[in-house]
Amino acid sequence: MDKIRSDGMNRRLRGFLCAAAGMLAVMAVSAGAADDLKPPVGYRNWFHVNTMIVDKASPLFAQLGGMHNVHVNSVGEPALKTGGPYPDGTMFLTDLHDFTVVDGSYVEGALKGLALMEKDSKRFAATGGWGFQFWVGGDATKPAVTDATKQCFECHQPQKAQDYVYSTYIP
Amino acid sequence: MDKIRSDGMNRRLRGFLCAAAGMLAVMAVSAGAADDLKPPVGYRNWFHVNTMIVDKASPLFAQLGGMHNVHVNSVGEPALKTGGPYPDGTMFLTDLHDFTVVDGSYVEGALKGLALMEKDSKRFAATGGWGFQFWVGGDATKPAVTDATKQCFECHQPQKAQDYVYSTYIP
Repeated sequence: MDKIRSDGMNRRLRGFLCAAAGMLAVMAVSAGAADDLKPPVGYRNWFHVNTMIVDKASPLFAQLGGMHNVHVNSVGEPALKTGGPYPDGTMFLTDLHDFTVVDGSYVEGALKGLALMEKDSKRFAATGGWGFQFWVGGDATKPAVTDATKQCFECHQPQKAQDYVYSTYIP
Repeated sequence: MDKIRSDGMNRRLRGFLCAAAGMLAVMAVSAGAADDLKPPVGYRNWFHVNTMIVDKASPLFAQLGGMHNVHVNSVGEPALKTGGPYPDGTMFLTDLHDFTVVDGSYVEGALKGLALMEKDSKRFAATGGWGFQFWVGGDATKPAVTDATKQCFECHQPQKAQDYVYSTYIP
């Protein structure tokens, strides 16, 4: 398998995966809502930011394997295109799906979970203005993040210049 | 690399790739608009249907390698969820992007082209009611489909029961 590297891409990937790893790592622990965030509706009609697949060759596959489809709502869409900062009310939603490999093609499968970053600069001041949550299977009764600072924000801190967001605009 | 198969998935994949192969195969020929279809705007805010990656292990990589992000407009979205048939005005848009592989993760890159299926049962009666086009680099002045029957529709015919569409709704 090819390994093509660039500093920018590695930085973006590392942060993204780090955050997601934190979210999923807690899934083995008893789930408890860290806050009252709720899974948003209609996100598949939000702006499609990018897609990434974490395959078996990745050391993070056990925790993070899947197809990550990232969407941003209309509040945050203009800021994505300028690299931030993001206004309050911005939501980034990743729908994480299974995938299968068929003759060298990677095909989307069932939903594994939903990851949310929601901006509220006052409410989430302790974590850069962002609230974080992950729902197993997209089920609102199964939040997996109990400590957003440790599980999520620590990995986003290096992206302070982009308002703690790793995703960038790809035309 | 794993090869996980299912009849349904193989059928869906084969048709999708067959059609796309037809579109791209003509890129070496001088381009000429087969009709007056135009690249739609705002498609990244349409419903995100699915994403598929055609990797180097695929025999179709040379023609089709890339990340295929499929979107459907609001006219066709309800019909996607019921498996068709689709009303006139439906558009399926695939934005095809490059990708790179970083430590086992597949990361989206630059835009390679846009593929469109647009429904108009009278105007495109000869091809199942669908018009087809592919624009190289998303450039409206670079249409690649000159014979929609041969390059596109022949591969969609087996999907007649789903109004010639291969994509299915994945919750």
